[in-house]
Amino acid sequence: MSSTSHLDGTRTRLIEGAADLLSTEPYPAVGVKAICDRADVQKGSFYHFFASKEDLTIAALDESWDRLKTEVIEPAMAGIPDAHSRCEAIWAACTNGEEGVDGIHRDARIIGRLASSVTENEPRLRERLGAVFTEWMTMLGDDEACWASLAELQGRLVLSFALPAGVAGA
Amino acid sequence: MSSTSHLDGTRTRLIEGAADLLSTEPYPAVGVKAICDRADVQKGSFYHFFASKEDLTIAALDESWDRLKTEVIEPAMAGIPDAHSRCEAIWAACTNGEEGVDGIHRDARIIGRLASSVTENEPRLRERLGAVFTEWMTMLGDDEACWASLAELQGRLVLSFALPAGVAGA
Repeated sequence: MSSTSHLDGTRTRLIEGAADLLSTEPYPAVGVKAICDRADVQKGSFYHFFASKEDLTIAALDESWDRLKTEVIEPAMAGIPDAHSRCEAIWAACTNGEEGVDGIHRDARIIGRLASSVTENEPRLRERLGAVFTEWMTMLGDDEACWASLAELQGRLVLSFALPAGVAGA
Repeated sequence: MSSTSHLDGTRTRLIEGAADLLSTEPYPAVGVKAICDRADVQKGSFYHFFASKEDLTIAALDESWDRLKTEVIEPAMAGIPDAHSRCEAIWAACTNGEEGVDGIHRDARIIGRLASSVTENEPRLRERLGAVFTEWMTMLGDDEACWASLAELQGRLVLSFALPAGVAGA
């Protein structure tokens, strides 16, 4: 293995480890040490790859959003004309039970958890999340009904965090 | 002031201080020290009043839910027959701009923040939140359309955490 691919492997493991933890815990509960333990990376090496937990989280968010968009959202809404039905199809695809905790797609959980737990202390992460939701909105169609549908989808995620599986129609 | 009312005052200040912080930060970001600082209470006194941060949070949640129910939800939905319109009226009442960060009612933010950031590490808080949402659902009317409406309302809260004010129709 070349040195470059070894470094790429470490970076990838850190992103994957962060994604695993961020799919089940709110942002402030996920520490750099826990991410390194999960990724089997020495904590001293972390800052060789990322300047901060926020930077790593943005990298993990970007990968999650790319996957969710191409593997879940775009296929689910193909051929469906209105925003509300599109969101219903996306939610069904996010909860097909094949992946993730409580049968909810891991990348959907990551985005939902991050949106729910970001604060003013992470302005760049918040800005990136704003860009993700704006892009998502634009994919749905850009009007008030789309915000309502997207909100319902995010809210179902939040209710799935707080309620036992199945209670909220998750 | 009697000793009893002094103790009552300290307990109330801890609950109010926790509620202030929990309305803008996710649960794991709010520490006992920060709550004590906010409430002007010595950290050593904290455990005289509450066995844990989780216990204090449950007390703060109970007060928030009682206020939200009697001051916002019940008045807003009075005379409105269907769940979706009830939720629209509740959301309008939560965002009348008179109270709270970004014009969103403080107690709605607290419940939304807690639901978004609770994990399996706080089983009693999670159970209490589940009871709150179940009660809320029963008030709306108990079917799938009500879950969808309640989810939309919670999702609007989450989008308001992640997006600049106004973007998500908040």
